[in-house]
This record gives sequence, structure tokens and C-alpha cells, in this order.
Amino acid sequence: MPAQRIIALDAMGGDHGPEVVIPGADIALVRHPQLEFRFFGNEAQIAPVLQRFPKLAARSKVVHTDVVVKSDDKPSQALRRGRGSSMWLALEAVQKGEADVCVSAGNTGALMAMAKLVLRPIADIERPAIAALWPTVTSECIVLDVGANIGASARQLCEYALMGAAMSRALFHIEKPSVGLLNVGVEEIKGVDEVRQAHAWLKEIKDLPIDYRGFVEGNQIGMGAVDVVVVEGFAGNIALKTAEGTARQIAEYIKAAMKRTWLSRIGAFLAQGGFRVLKEKMDPRRANGGTFLGLNGIAIKSHGGTDALGFASAIELGYDMAESGLLARLTADLISFHGKLEAAVGK
Amino acid sequence: MPAQRIIALDAMGGDHGPEVVIPGADIALVRHPQLEFRFFGNEAQIAPVLQRFPKLAARSKVVHTDVVVKSDDKPSQALRRGRGSSMWLALEAVQKGEADVCVSAGNTGALMAMAKLVLRPIADIERPAIAALWPTVTSECIVLDVGANIGASARQLCEYALMGAAMSRALFHIEKPSVGLLNVGVEEIKGVDEVRQAHAWLKEIKDLPIDYRGFVEGNQIGMGAVDVVVVEGFAGNIALKTAEGTARQIAEYIKAAMKRTWLSRIGAFLAQGGFRVLKEKMDPRRANGGTFLGLNGIAIKSHGGTDALGFASAIELGYDMAESGLLARLTADLISFHGKLEAAVGK
Repeated sequence: MPAQRIIALDAMGGDHGPEVVIPGADIALVRHPQLEFRFFGNEAQIAPVLQRFPKLAARSKVVHTDVVVKSDDKPSQALRRGRGSSMWLALEAVQKGEADVCVSAGNTGALMAMAKLVLRPIADIERPAIAALWPTVTSECIVLDVGANIGASARQLCEYALMGAAMSRALFHIEKPSVGLLNVGVEEIKGVDEVRQAHAWLKEIKDLPIDYRGFVEGNQIGMGAVDVVVVEGFAGNIALKTAEGTARQIAEYIKAAMKRTWLSRIGAFLAQGGFRVLKEKMDPRRANGGTFLGLNGIAIKSHGGTDALGFASAIELGYDMAESGLLARLTADLISFHGKLEAAVGK
Repeated sequence: MPAQRIIALDAMGGDHGPEVVIPGADIALVRHPQLEFRFFGNEAQIAPVLQRFPKLAARSKVVHTDVVVKSDDKPSQALRRGRGSSMWLALEAVQKGEADVCVSAGNTGALMAMAKLVLRPIADIERPAIAALWPTVTSECIVLDVGANIGASARQLCEYALMGAAMSRALFHIEKPSVGLLNVGVEEIKGVDEVRQAHAWLKEIKDLPIDYRGFVEGNQIGMGAVDVVVVEGFAGNIALKTAEGTARQIAEYIKAAMKRTWLSRIGAFLAQGGFRVLKEKMDPRRANGGTFLGLNGIAIKSHGGTDALGFASAIELGYDMAESGLLARLTADLISFHGKLEAAVGK
């Protein structure tokens, strides 16, 4: 029987607050009846929504706070004003061991800044990263960093490689995940200095728990070329958003193309089973949830604009991560890597 | 009647050399019978292919050279060894006024380095850029830089904005194109310093020939949010490749979904007219061709792996650019911008 897990939820985060967070938790509870929930936020807003879900209410506690991090707060403002906020308390519940995972649909920058302060980075890493699940033609891969930081040193890129591999191992049970560095060309001559240096280290350093495959380009991500794609956060975020936009754009094309003639309309009607599968495949809610990697605790960022189904996906992602025992293994991997890196650069 | 235009072609560039370049030229000639061609490269390889296209042969000249830039040459090697190569001679034909445009499917870095040396940057700009045509739900937009340079200063990003706008004006006859800066968030607080500084200048400096719309995110490109999207070349190249990959991935999904049941198969058969339109919409060959902007002459980079139809698109793009009188206007725009920028920063 799966272990009981407690999920800490920032009930005020995202565009819709409790109206999405609570129904989302209810969907996750149907799928995983052993879950328990802690809702952090304004009780006057949470209680009436929670009332509508009696089974969920029976497995939940509400912790009241008036303090809320706004969606346009800068990280520094959030740190100053946000202590005791719904976001802060949800993270703190994980730090204190009162919850296994925290999920918030609030402001990414604020969540990252608070998570670093509350949960603290593991194993002396320079920066945590946000990892996204990316659907591929074969299954799914992990792409990181998709926006925690702008820019990344060679050492950070290597750390991302190990963090992404740990997540791949945790979620997909791949013992030695294949890893690629995202670059603008497959020839070794191309790319920025940091990417080139990371490439050299990942090739040279022996016995890392990854199968390093060298550079990959943007068009190889969705083809499932590797299990883990490593990139600094500016380009990574742009790649993720661009892929989402392209999927939406093609969905528009499909709709328009199938309405062109009566014959296409009839054909599309007969093929609606196929289109339903296609729609599910392309549903961005299935892969909702960015995982913060490199912290002493599991924190998941949901899209701010998602609905209950999307929020449930983010909760389930957190649950899977908590089940996997990722943190202990990742910490060991990173400590080992840092030792090998120091030996390699002759420190 | 449209003017006669002479197209200089690097016959040896790309994965297939004359076997794609010459049939590509033939397709372009059918569509624009007033074109003339100059093929630069190994005559012994060009002549037998050209023989198969008598109409094209009648409007072509072949200029022999043994020197070829290899696809894995570094730009510096290409500059040392590549003088007199098919790529070099094609660019030189434009510089000497013997051709209106140069098209090559060769090594991007080598082509950029040579183009800078042979054609020279206009109006004291710091770096030329490569612009891509990007299909959107409404029509097409222009994205630059998609890989000429890694990184870009604020001034360069502003120059890209003006260059992209000039191309939009030339191809789509939009007098004051809308321009967005690609960033990782729409709030002004986000993004890198260079992007933020460019944003401030584009907002402050009056009477630029663009309609500046602020930051855009990756998911807005394909939605047609703006006519011109400005980004530094590393992230721009990754965005372009990622969009291509996502389109290919979804095409795979569609194929699989329509084969699932007999009913979907029948439906897909009846809707094949719609699927044909969809396939055309998603055909990457339609938008083949990166335009080098910011040089005293028009140079187009075709995908190295494209076929004759894709190469023909690149030729036609070059033809449209030559027809538009873009260079004179762009030079004036850039000189005017530099003056205003100097006034703005108080030099």
C-alpha cells in the first residue's frame, strides 16, 4: 500500500486561488485516496469552497493567514513582505517535516526566492533549477532550467544534468538517464563558452550516473532524443513557451483545416476518436508543474492560469517525487560530482 | 513587368550541393521567368545536372571554382581557406553588383563571417543578424536573431528591431510594423539587463519607424502577437528549432491518432483535403531561408538539408527582398536611430 503523504498547498496562489486549488486537490484525492492536505491562506475564502468537497474536507486542515504574495511582486519584495504568507507557510510545512511536498501556483520568482531561503539548497550547489516535463513522440523527457535563473555557469549546467537525471530516475525509473546539452549546433565548434566547458566536463569526468550524449538542438527535444535536456533558464523558458505556443497554433490550424469543406467536416466527425486522443496528447494540463530541483524539500510550481485538472497534475507530480526518495540520492550524486570536478580542474 | 534579377548561387553548399541547388533554381524560374542565375562551384559536378534543365541552362552561367567551404569548417578556417570558394564568389558577385542576391545552403558560421567581410555591415551597426520567417495563426512574422551571434547588447537588440521592421515593411508592406522583445515574462521586472535596457530605449526614443509593443513570451510568437520578434541569437535559434521540432512531433501524433481505429482511418480519408491544407501549413520548406540583415547586400542562408522545393523558397525570399529596395531605407533608419540613441544616452 502506498504511504500516506501530506501535501501543503498555497491556496491563494495563481489567477483563481482557492477556486482552482481546492477542486484540484479533490481530483488528486480521488486518484490517490491516501493523500492528506494542508491549505494555507485566507480561511474566509477557503472554507466555503472546501465545504463543497466533503471527502476532501475530511482529509484537510486549513491554516489561516492574511498575508499574500502578489503575482507582480518582485522576489525581493516577496522576501520582505511575504514571511508568514500562504506561500511561505506551505514551504515551511515541508521544511519542518509536517508535509512531504509543497505546491503553489503563485509568482515563480517569489516562490523560488522563498524556497531557497526556507528549504535551502542541497550539497553546496550554486543554484536550484526549475525542471519541466516535456512530452515527446516516445514518452516524456525532462528539461531544465526553464526559468529559475538567467544564465548558468559550466558548473551549474553540470549540476542541472545531475538534478535532471535524478528526477528522471525518480519518475521514470531509468537508472542511467541519457542527457544532452541544448546548443545551437551539434558541431563542437559552436555555442557559448559555459556550454562548451560543461560539455568538456561531462565528457571527461568518469562514472557519473548519467549517459552523456553531447549537444542536442531544439528540434530534438520533442523527438525524445534524450531523457534529460540541460539549458540555462532564459533560453530554456523561451523554448518551453515556444513549444506551448506552437502546439496551440497547430491546434488552430487543425480546427480551421477540418472546417474547410463538408467532406472534411464529415471526415473529422468520423475520426473524432482519433482527434480526442490527439487533444489529450496535446493537452498542456497533463504536463503542468515545474519542479524545483536542488533544494532540501520538494516544491512544485503550477501554472498560474491553470484549471483544477492542471492543478491536480501538479499535485500528482509532487506526490510522485515524494514517493521516489529522490532527495537522498541526488544529494549523494552532487557531492560525488563536486569531488570529481575538483579533482578534474586540479584544485 | 517585374525587373530582371540575377541570383548568385553557391552550387556546392548544403548536404546535396548541385543536386538540390539546380532543381531548386528551376522551380524558382518557373515561378519567376525573368530570373537569371549564376552558379558558382565545380563545373564538372554542375554541368551534368544543369543539362537536365534546358530552360534554366539557357538563363544561367557557371563560374568554376575548386575551392569549397566544408560544413564543419570553423568560421576562422573558412575565412583563411575559403577565399575564391563557391560561397565567397557568390557573395562577391553581389558586392560587385553583378548579382542582386546570393543564396547558399552552406555552413552558417562561415557564410556569416564571409558575408561580413565581403558585403560589409551597413550604417556602423555592431553585428548583422539572421532573420527567419515564422508562420503564425494569422499570417507570418519575422524573428531575429536566430543564430548569427550569441548574446546581444541592448544597442544590438534595438538595431535588430529596426532591421526586422525593415524586412517586414519590404515583404509585407507594413509601414510601421509592431515589434516585441522576447523575454521570459511580461512583467517589466523580469529578464536580463540587455533586454531591459533595450526595452527602455525602444519605449523612450521617439519617432522610430516601429510600433513597439514591449515584451512578448515564446508562446505569443506563433499566435501572431507582433510582426517582428527580437531576441539574441542563442535563445532565438533554440526557439526556432524547438518550434520546428514541436511541429514535427505533432505531425507524428496526428498520424498515429488517425490510424488508431477503422473509423478514424475512414474519417481521415474523407478529411484528406483538410489534412493536405494542414500539411502545407506545417511544411517547414515554405519558410526555408534565413535572411542576413545589416549588410550592404542581400544574402540568404538556406537549410543545409532542404530539398529543391525548400531551396526554391529561399531563392524566392531573396528575390522578394531584392525587389523591395530594403537596403536604402534600412540604412537611413539605422543612421537616424544611432543619432537618437546618442542624444538619449547623452553622448
